[in-house]
Amino acid sequence: MYSTMPDIPLTLVRVLRHGATVQGASTVSTWNGRSFDRRSYAEVGERTARLAHALRTRLGVRTGTRPESEQSVVGTFMWNNARHLELFLTVPAMGAVLHTHNLRMPAAQLIYTIRHAGDEVIVVDAGLTGTLATVLPHLPDTVRHIVVAGRGGRAALAGFTGEVHDYEELIADQPVDYPWEEELDEHTAATICYTSGTTGNPKGIVYSHRSTYLHCLQVAAPNRFDLTHRETIFPIAPMFHVNAWNIPHTAFLTGADLLLADRYLQPVPLAHMIELGRPTAAAAVPTVWTGLLAELDARPYDTSSLRRGLVGGSACPPALMAAYRDRHSIELVHAWGMTETSSLTTTALPPRRVDSEEEWSYRISQGQFPASIRFRLVDDDGVIVPNNGVATGELQVRGPCVTSAYHGGVDAPQRKPEADFTPDGWLRTGDVGRISPDGYLTLTDRAKDVIKSGGEFISSVELENALAEHPAVVEAAVVAVPDDRWGERPLAAVSLRPGSGAEPADLRDFLARRIESWMVPERWTVLSSVPKNSVGKYDKRGIQDQYARGRLDVVHLSRHPSGGTTAREPGLIGM
Amino acid sequence: MYSTMPDIPLTLVRVLRHGATVQGASTVSTWNGRSFDRRSYAEVGERTARLAHALRTRLGVRTGTRPESEQSVVGTFMWNNARHLELFLTVPAMGAVLHTHNLRMPAAQLIYTIRHAGDEVIVVDAGLTGTLATVLPHLPDTVRHIVVAGRGGRAALAGFTGEVHDYEELIADQPVDYPWEEELDEHTAATICYTSGTTGNPKGIVYSHRSTYLHCLQVAAPNRFDLTHRETIFPIAPMFHVNAWNIPHTAFLTGADLLLADRYLQPVPLAHMIELGRPTAAAAVPTVWTGLLAELDARPYDTSSLRRGLVGGSACPPALMAAYRDRHSIELVHAWGMTETSSLTTTALPPRRVDSEEEWSYRISQGQFPASIRFRLVDDDGVIVPNNGVATGELQVRGPCVTSAYHGGVDAPQRKPEADFTPDGWLRTGDVGRISPDGYLTLTDRAKDVIKSGGEFISSVELENALAEHPAVVEAAVVAVPDDRWGERPLAAVSLRPGSGAEPADLRDFLARRIESWMVPERWTVLSSVPKNSVGKYDKRGIQDQYARGRLDVVHLSRHPSGGTTAREPGLIGM
Repeated sequence: MYSTMPDIPLTLVRVLRHGATVQGASTVSTWNGRSFDRRSYAEVGERTARLAHALRTRLGVRTGTRPESEQSVVGTFMWNNARHLELFLTVPAMGAVLHTHNLRMPAAQLIYTIRHAGDEVIVVDAGLTGTLATVLPHLPDTVRHIVVAGRGGRAALAGFTGEVHDYEELIADQPVDYPWEEELDEHTAATICYTSGTTGNPKGIVYSHRSTYLHCLQVAAPNRFDLTHRETIFPIAPMFHVNAWNIPHTAFLTGADLLLADRYLQPVPLAHMIELGRPTAAAAVPTVWTGLLAELDARPYDTSSLRRGLVGGSACPPALMAAYRDRHSIELVHAWGMTETSSLTTTALPPRRVDSEEEWSYRISQGQFPASIRFRLVDDDGVIVPNNGVATGELQVRGPCVTSAYHGGVDAPQRKPEADFTPDGWLRTGDVGRISPDGYLTLTDRAKDVIKSGGEFISSVELENALAEHPAVVEAAVVAVPDDRWGERPLAAVSLRPGSGAEPADLRDFLARRIESWMVPERWTVLSSVPKNSVGKYDKRGIQDQYARGRLDVVHLSRHPSGGTTAREPGLIGM
Repeated sequence: MYSTMPDIPLTLVRVLRHGATVQGASTVSTWNGRSFDRRSYAEVGERTARLAHALRTRLGVRTGTRPESEQSVVGTFMWNNARHLELFLTVPAMGAVLHTHNLRMPAAQLIYTIRHAGDEVIVVDAGLTGTLATVLPHLPDTVRHIVVAGRGGRAALAGFTGEVHDYEELIADQPVDYPWEEELDEHTAATICYTSGTTGNPKGIVYSHRSTYLHCLQVAAPNRFDLTHRETIFPIAPMFHVNAWNIPHTAFLTGADLLLADRYLQPVPLAHMIELGRPTAAAAVPTVWTGLLAELDARPYDTSSLRRGLVGGSACPPALMAAYRDRHSIELVHAWGMTETSSLTTTALPPRRVDSEEEWSYRISQGQFPASIRFRLVDDDGVIVPNNGVATGELQVRGPCVTSAYHGGVDAPQRKPEADFTPDGWLRTGDVGRISPDGYLTLTDRAKDVIKSGGEFISSVELENALAEHPAVVEAAVVAVPDDRWGERPLAAVSLRPGSGAEPADLRDFLARRIESWMVPERWTVLSSVPKNSVGKYDKRGIQDQYARGRLDVVHLSRHPSGGTTAREPGLIGM
C-alpha cells in the first residue's frame, strides 16, 4: 500500500520562514557590554534575504539543493551575536554550507579545517581580525573573500590577497525578499563542524538539513529546553561549538526569544545578562556554570526567571548541581552529547513516583536517550552487555542525528575507521559507563581518561565529583599519570577558593572518607585555574603533558589520612 | 558536499522499542466501569511481540518494509483500551497497515471502507460483535479472520464464513521477542483512516511511518500537549477517529502515562476518570467538553491534575473555554486539524507581552501552525490573500503530515481531484477564515456551512459562539436553509439547560444585542439534544435534511427584539 503523504522535506528554510513570519515578533538580544541590542525575528528575516542576495550575486557563493550539489562553504569567525545568527540561517537556507570556526583552536588546526572544508568566504567579527590575521599567510587560495562584521579591525587584514568587505555595506542595498527553495532535498548539507581533536587533526562532521531539523525538535522538546514562543533561551555555549547545540535554529523553529552574550562569556557579565534578559532556560558546559556560581554566590542577582539550566559537554559534578538547587533555586539538568551526535542527546529528567533521594540519583546520571536513538554498551571483547545498571562498556549509538562517518575520512594514517565506527555503522563514542533498566545512562569516564591502576580501573569522574563536594574546591581534574609500581595512578589538579586555607592533605583526607582507599591519589597539584581546552573542558592531555615535562608543582602524599590534619577539616573545627 | 549523517528512518518501531524499554515503567490504564485496569509499557511491549508472531504465523498477515510492499490490512472495531493500543503499535511496527473503523459509521460506509482498504483481519471488542454482525453478510472475501478481544460476544458472529479467534488465546503461547525491522523505509504505510464523508463515500488517508512519527513529535511539543514521562495524557477522543490524534503512539514516544476510557465516553464516568486517573492533559471535541462541563458544574470532582485540555475537531465556543477557566481552573487550548492533516495541526497559545483582553482574543483563535506546515488563504478567484487579520479566504496547507491525495482516488465520479487538491499539491481544507500577521488562524466557517444571505456571508460559527454565551444554552448549531427572498437564511438549532425557562425569543433578543441585526436568525428549533455525526461534531447536513422534510418543530420570529420579553433576560430581572 502506498502512503498518501507527500515526501515534504525537513529543511532550515522552513525554520527561517516560520521564525521570520509566524514568530516575527520574537527577538534576538545581543549583549554590548552594558545592555542588550535587540532585533526582531522579522527584521532578522529581512536581513537574511539581503545577506543571501549579497553572498550569491556579489561574492559568487554557489548554492545547491541536492546532496550531490557543488555548494560553497562559508566560514565564520564570530562570537554569539545577531549577525552570527543571520549567517546560521542564511547560509544553509540558501543552499550553501556554514562552517563555524572554533575561535580557540590552535592556528595550525584552524588552517587545516579551512583547507579541509574548502572555505570560500570567511565572515569575521571586527574584534577578531587580529586573531584571523595570524593565519592570513597560510590561507588556501579557495578563500576569496573576507567579510568584516562591525566597525574597525580592517588594518589587521592588510596582507589578505582577496577582497575584504564590510558586512553592513554588503547587504545594504539588497532586496528584502529572497526566493528560498522551500523544498530542497533534506539530505543536502547544511553545516560542518570540526571536533576539537586532542590528538591528530580535527575531524569534520557534516550535518544535513534533516539532521539539524530533527535535532532542533529534540532541543525544543519538553524534556530538553521545553521551548515555545513564550520562553527565552540563553545559549551560553558558543555558537562556534556544535552550533551552540542548535539553539539558535531552535529559537527560530519555536519563536523562543534568544539571548546572545557576544564575547562577554565571563561570570560577571553573564550574571548581569541573566538578571536583565530574564531567560527561562540556558545551556553551558560545567566549567562555565562553575565560574558563574562563584559570582552568584558573591553578589546578589535576580535569577528568578531561569527555571532550567542544561549542563553538558563533560560530566557535571553533583555538588555543582546541588549548589545551584540549594542556593539559587536553579534546576541544572544534566545532559550528554558530542559533536558527532549533533550535541544534546540525553537528558536526566527523573521518573515520577520516586522519593527525593532516588530522584537525585537519577538527576546526576547523564539521563535518557530520545526515541530516535539506538544505544548499547559493548565490552572490550566486543560483546554487548546488559542494561542492568551494573555492567559497564563503551557506549555506542546510532540515529538520524548521529554521524556515521567523518568528512573526507580521518586524517590519521595509523587510525582505522573501525576505531570510530563499528562495521554495522554505529558510532563508538569513546565514553564508558552503565545504563539502568529504565534507560538512564551513567558515564564513568572517557575511555582514554580511565586510570588503569594495578589491573583495576579508577574512574576520574568519580574522583572529580567527590573532590567537587569539598567546600574549598572550585575546580578539580583527575588524570592518569605513569607509575612504576601500578602502571598508572591518578594525579589530582585542583583550584581552590581564595582564602580557604585548604591544602592537598585536607582534600586527601576528605576523599579517603568517601572512596576506597586504593583509589585516593598520591599526586596533587594546586593551580590558580585548571587549564581548559578550546571548548571549555578540562585539558587533561595538557595536564599530563605538563606533568611529563616536570612543569607542574606536584605534592606527593601517602594515600592514607594523616591524623594531624583532620582538625582542619570543615565541620570538625571546634569538636 | 555530502552530509555525514546516515539516513536513519523515523519509524513506529523506534516508538514501540523506546516505550517498551526506556519507558517500560510507564502505564496504560483502561477504565472498566468502576476502576482502571493497569498495564506497564514493558508488558505491552511483550504482548505486541506475541501479537505480531500470532498475526504473522497464525493469521498469515503479510508484512513489508518498503512503500511498494504488499502489506496486509488489519482492521479494528474497538473502543479506547489497552488491546487497541497493542494493535496501534504492533500492526504498523511489524510492517502491516492498521485500519481503525469508526464505530458510528453507517453500515453501508463501513462495508465500503473494509472493501476499499482490503481488510484481511478484523479485531473486534467482544461487546461490539453485535454491531459488526450487521455487516457480516456483506463482508468481502478478503476478510479471512475475525479476532474477538474480551469475553463473550461469539454468538453474534455465527454467520461468518472465515475463522473466529480469541485475542488472548491467539497470543498466549507466542514468544515475547519479535525481530522488528528497526530500519524499515519510513515512507512505508503505517495506518489508514477514512474521513466521515457527509456526502459520497468515505475517503481514505494513508499515513506513513514518517508522517506519524513527525506528527507524534508535534503532539508532544511544548505548545501542544507538552508531554514527557512525568505526565499523564487522556485522549477522550476515540482511537477510531484519526488515531485519537496519534496520542497513543505519542505516549510510547514520550513515556507519558496513558488513560483510556474504553466505551465509557459519557460525562459521569469521564469525570470519575479525571478524578481517579489524574491526567495532566486531555483531548476531546467541543461537544464532549460541553457535556463534561455540565457534570463538573453539577457535582464536585477533583480535577486539579488537569492543567491543559486541548479542544479541536470543530470550532470551540469561547463561552465554553471561559466556563472551564472561570469555574474549574482548566485551561482549554483551542486547536484545529483534519483527518487530512493527521489531526492536531494548529494550537492557540497566546504570545507573551499581551494584556489579558488581547490574550483572550488569541486564545479563541484556532492558533498557530508548526514550522513544518506551509499555509495560505485563497479567495474565490484563486488569488492568495494577505495574512493581515482581515482578508478571508479558503485555507490551503502543505506539509509532511498533510495528505496530498486520497487512497485510490475519490469514489465520486462527478468530483474532480481539483476540488480537494490544488495543481501545485496543496490541500484545499474547505475551511474559510483569516490569518493575523503573527500567524494566528481564525476560522469563520466550513466553506459548505457559510450562509449566503442576500449576497452577504453570515458565519455560522459566529452565531453559534454568540448563542453559547447565553447561560441557558447547552448546545447551538446554526445551518443555512433556503429562503425565497434572501436565497439562504440561518436556522438556529439549540438545546437548553433543563428548567432554564428560556425561549427562542429570549435567545433572539440576546443575539440582537451582540451581532448585526440582519444576521439574526428568524428560524429557531429547540431540541433535547442537537444531533451529532459519527465523530461527535454537529450533524449540520442532518439538521438541514430534517428541516427540508418538515420534520423539525420550527418557531418563526421576526429578526427584531420584542419589548415584551426583555424582562425575562438574565441580568435584567429586578431592574
